[in-house]
Amino acid sequence: MSDLTLIPPLLGIVGLVVATIIYFIVKSYDEGSEALQKIANQIHIGAMVFMRREYSMLAIFASVILAVIYFSPLGWMTAVAFIAGALSSALAGWFGMFTATKANVRTTQAAHKQGQSAALSVAFFGGSIMGLAVASLGLLGLGIVYYLFGGDPHTAHHIHGFGMGASVVALFSRVGGGIYTKSADVGADLVGKLEQGIPEDDPRNPGVIADNVGDNVGDVAGMGSDIFESYCGSMIATIAIASTLALASITNLAPGLAEEEGRASLMFLPLALASTGLIASIIGIGVVRSFSGANPAVALRIGMIGSTVLFIAAAYFLMDALGLSVNIWWSVLFGAAGGIVIGLITEYYTSSRPVVKIAESGKTGPATVMITGLAVGMESVVVPILTICAIIYVSTTLAGLYGVGVAAVGLLATVGMTMAVDAYGPIADNAGGIAEMGGLGEETRAITDSLDELGNTTAAMGKGFAIGAAALAALAIIAAFVETITVESGGDFVLHLGNPKVLIGMFLGGLVPFLIASITMTSVGEAAMAMIQEIRRQFREIPGLMEGTAEPDNAKCVDIATTAALRKMLLPGFIAVAVPPAIGFGLGAQALGGALGGALLGCVLLALTMANAGGAWDNAKKYVEKGNLGGKGSDVHAAVVVGDTVGDPFKDTSGPSMNILINVMAIVSLVIAPLLV
Amino acid sequence: MSDLTLIPPLLGIVGLVVATIIYFIVKSYDEGSEALQKIANQIHIGAMVFMRREYSMLAIFASVILAVIYFSPLGWMTAVAFIAGALSSALAGWFGMFTATKANVRTTQAAHKQGQSAALSVAFFGGSIMGLAVASLGLLGLGIVYYLFGGDPHTAHHIHGFGMGASVVALFSRVGGGIYTKSADVGADLVGKLEQGIPEDDPRNPGVIADNVGDNVGDVAGMGSDIFESYCGSMIATIAIASTLALASITNLAPGLAEEEGRASLMFLPLALASTGLIASIIGIGVVRSFSGANPAVALRIGMIGSTVLFIAAAYFLMDALGLSVNIWWSVLFGAAGGIVIGLITEYYTSSRPVVKIAESGKTGPATVMITGLAVGMESVVVPILTICAIIYVSTTLAGLYGVGVAAVGLLATVGMTMAVDAYGPIADNAGGIAEMGGLGEETRAITDSLDELGNTTAAMGKGFAIGAAALAALAIIAAFVETITVESGGDFVLHLGNPKVLIGMFLGGLVPFLIASITMTSVGEAAMAMIQEIRRQFREIPGLMEGTAEPDNAKCVDIATTAALRKMLLPGFIAVAVPPAIGFGLGAQALGGALGGALLGCVLLALTMANAGGAWDNAKKYVEKGNLGGKGSDVHAAVVVGDTVGDPFKDTSGPSMNILINVMAIVSLVIAPLLV
Repeated sequence: MSDLTLIPPLLGIVGLVVATIIYFIVKSYDEGSEALQKIANQIHIGAMVFMRREYSMLAIFASVILAVIYFSPLGWMTAVAFIAGALSSALAGWFGMFTATKANVRTTQAAHKQGQSAALSVAFFGGSIMGLAVASLGLLGLGIVYYLFGGDPHTAHHIHGFGMGASVVALFSRVGGGIYTKSADVGADLVGKLEQGIPEDDPRNPGVIADNVGDNVGDVAGMGSDIFESYCGSMIATIAIASTLALASITNLAPGLAEEEGRASLMFLPLALASTGLIASIIGIGVVRSFSGANPAVALRIGMIGSTVLFIAAAYFLMDALGLSVNIWWSVLFGAAGGIVIGLITEYYTSSRPVVKIAESGKTGPATVMITGLAVGMESVVVPILTICAIIYVSTTLAGLYGVGVAAVGLLATVGMTMAVDAYGPIADNAGGIAEMGGLGEETRAITDSLDELGNTTAAMGKGFAIGAAALAALAIIAAFVETITVESGGDFVLHLGNPKVLIGMFLGGLVPFLIASITMTSVGEAAMAMIQEIRRQFREIPGLMEGTAEPDNAKCVDIATTAALRKMLLPGFIAVAVPPAIGFGLGAQALGGALGGALLGCVLLALTMANAGGAWDNAKKYVEKGNLGGKGSDVHAAVVVGDTVGDPFKDTSGPSMNILINVMAIVSLVIAPLLV
Repeated sequence: MSDLTLIPPLLGIVGLVVATIIYFIVKSYDEGSEALQKIANQIHIGAMVFMRREYSMLAIFASVILAVIYFSPLGWMTAVAFIAGALSSALAGWFGMFTATKANVRTTQAAHKQGQSAALSVAFFGGSIMGLAVASLGLLGLGIVYYLFGGDPHTAHHIHGFGMGASVVALFSRVGGGIYTKSADVGADLVGKLEQGIPEDDPRNPGVIADNVGDNVGDVAGMGSDIFESYCGSMIATIAIASTLALASITNLAPGLAEEEGRASLMFLPLALASTGLIASIIGIGVVRSFSGANPAVALRIGMIGSTVLFIAAAYFLMDALGLSVNIWWSVLFGAAGGIVIGLITEYYTSSRPVVKIAESGKTGPATVMITGLAVGMESVVVPILTICAIIYVSTTLAGLYGVGVAAVGLLATVGMTMAVDAYGPIADNAGGIAEMGGLGEETRAITDSLDELGNTTAAMGKGFAIGAAALAALAIIAAFVETITVESGGDFVLHLGNPKVLIGMFLGGLVPFLIASITMTSVGEAAMAMIQEIRRQFREIPGLMEGTAEPDNAKCVDIATTAALRKMLLPGFIAVAVPPAIGFGLGAQALGGALGGALLGCVLLALTMANAGGAWDNAKKYVEKGNLGGKGSDVHAAVVVGDTVGDPFKDTSGPSMNILINVMAIVSLVIAPLLV
């Protein structure tokens, strides 16, 4: 077995090499005129400054946690895994951001000089690097930790620390990134477009660089760390469940193997599946590249579906090779299919009839836009939840709780491809912003706009996918938590809802997502207010700014957004990390188990409601701006703009924070599980 | 024991006699000029027409359920209890509505001729009749059913049918009433105030009678049936838990008694507590009457606190008399205190700093009003949930699951008084409307306004109280469900969250409140749209309407609101009743248990968020209309009006529906529990 366990980290290195090659391909594209380069450089520096300051703050926060882990009975092994997880996640985010802010201007220039196909290639290559970085660093980091600790049942639980490290980084990236991107967006739009009447991405607007930095910070780094955490979390959970399986289950799941061998195969399977997924993703990226000359939308879809199908097919043979039951394969298949269903439902609610309904409710003003949008968001939970229930039902029937784990891994295995398509969006968006700021004219802008629009659709799918992935990963981690305590306590750990402690836990867990949503929404409002005041001040105090004879102080706006985001992410971060130990050590393991159940339910419901309401409001505004129902400047437009503004923190700050919140709470619980018995 | 069991129904009759006496006192007040009488009569008839049509539809719906129960293994006894519950609830609603629409005009006239003290007396007396009707019919109906079935352990479970009957009526009254009141309110305000620029309650507005009918339909009948259902539900659940207690628990809770005697005492206790509460309420009503000459606000507060203190003190001696442990008394005390805490928190979030914060966010437009309001609503769940957790912790520590039941009963025992204060609000509101329509001048209006404002504060407390009551009652019913199945199945029913079925149930249960909230919000929007079109049509087509030379067709508007409300309450009603058997018979009792947990959590979180956000938006508008931040007509005002409009269905339709939803789901589950084993 142990020679096989070297494959995932080696494949991780291969993935990183491919990513590096793609990076040099991206670099080889023309970065355009000096004016363009200057704009792009400001965005790049802004993004890097944010990353540096975020990571500095994170380093302090993580050090405290690290010290606690080190001096706890968990000891140095969990601490090492924690550092590895945090570093891998941070590196993936940094690598992705660095490249995305190099790819954006090259996409602009390609659109300007070479046309749509070349522009798509650059943007997609930029995204691919993020995708490959996430998948490869996950495999490399987790693979090494698994190699070190996974072989011995007594040390296997130290692997959980890796997930906790990844989660803590993700928490800060998602929450901080979410606050950053929306405060900059709202601030720049409100003063620029509404008060000063200048177009979006106008270079005279002091907030416009911060706004473009925000797209990267939120949608590249934030999304990447979110997916990274679910990716690793689902693998870790499955490993943990496998390590606690009873003999009967092993005989069922690995019919041809002896107990120890069977357990080793089952524990190794998640990493093997992810390895297969990485190869499928690399092939998928190649496919998109070859088809990008024709229809970009079709190219992306062929790439995504192709790599999933390839992965599923390869997984079938993998089961065979590892001597595992085909039932596990069905769970993998259901997980992967479920992710696509949830993504498609998200696309429906944020693009089809519901969007038109919201836009039409704008005829009676902003209040009805709000009511209709909220109703759409709440309705949108139904099918995804039913899908999750179906996945749970099928996978547990076929393979017990282990089935839930591999279903989550199946959903996330082709993350290299999914994340590539996801990260492509903000690069295209940025490319459009740079074209506007650089004054490249209608034609270039039309190309970047069409790429951006495609990015919005894939982003909607990506958000639904991220929620589904987070929910399943969290579920698997919670199952691992239950199994770990059951084994450690000698088999009498039952989370009976009729037990008052479990019930109290459920209520406490359920209130956390509402509290975090409240805090993050308020934070965006306050950070945006600081931004608005600064932009107003610059328009007022810098002579010649509106005339274009003076330059705005972009750096100041970037600094304000950065400072606000970093300061305001501390409280929700602290709550997410502190609640599980507080409940676990205060009220006991059963209350903590109940809390995870309540938090999971609350997070999934709020995440879906907020993401889909927000996405639908956004697109209702775009629908009107295309000239429907009176178009720009009409009363209906004013009404849907209100919806869009409310939707911004919904879909890009509070909603996505829910994904991380539940995973952080679950993984922290899993880490402290051995101490609770 | 059996002679004691006659006391509750007899006390119920006494309560009804007192209510009738008060009714004649109200009737003895002057009902004013013919013009006033005509207006009041229109409201009265509109309300009665709604009740008649609602009850006709309900009769069909209930007949179907009745037939299902009758031909199921539950048989005729549960069917009889079901009818008794439905009739008692319907009668209480009818009685309260009938009186409220008699008291409103007499309040107006008293304010006009006799001044504030007399006006308060009439309005409060009107509300008292509703309060006493709820408490007395609950005791009478449930008391008789208990007398018939409660003595024999083999028939005791038929009592559950009473709760189901009450819940089904409550569901329709709350949802239908909520849709009615808000569609009429929004329609009348939007066309009258905004489009035609005429004042609120202007008699030229064709929707104004419907609007006033709506206050009664939603806030008197709807709230009454909501409280009635929680009141009976908590008693029934406690009886059910007592009937399944093990010997050890009985010895603990009734130390001096033998098993059978102890069980009988514990089963009878809820009715005994409610009887004590009814007496305390009648005394409290007398106290308010005597103090109403001085400060009305103080009078109401003394009455409420006085009757609670009296009840708690009497409950102490009751425990002693029945030979029960003082630990039970502590649970009662904690329940009653918890209700007050939740009410006070609701008052805080809908009146103090959060309201000012929302109003101030209006400076940057309606979008920030929405974000701040939603953040306030979400934050407001924290303390009430912590309070519920504290009640669960203390009561179960002292008295096991039985403790949760008696805590709920303790919270609801003085319902005669609480409901009196609650129903006083809409009567005062109506009185103001009649004064405006009747043109009674500034001075009268000032008195009715001051009474109305007091009513708004008590209504906020009442809403928080209703949510707390519903949550605890539902919790008790769910506990009874678990205990019933445990006993029937011979003791191995465990709702383990690690069991996939329980987990799937939890997800399914959790999505129901979101779905119902979505449906009811959409319904209000659609019904309001029908209303708007009719009012616009009348202003357009009836010549002389704006000049005051022609009369509006009020009846048509009443009819539209009635039809819309009744049609749109069917779907949510069906879902609430159908989901538990669908899950229970489809996926099993464990999935249903999980579903109740998920639904309880979702309902409580949404109910608190929606009620408090809605209440806070409402008062933010009122805060601005008092002249703050630019006052009426300013941009800030326009922004907070948007918040208020969104808040209307939040606080008066979807939010309150959650209370019933969880109780209907729980009681239906309890009724079918014996069939699931």
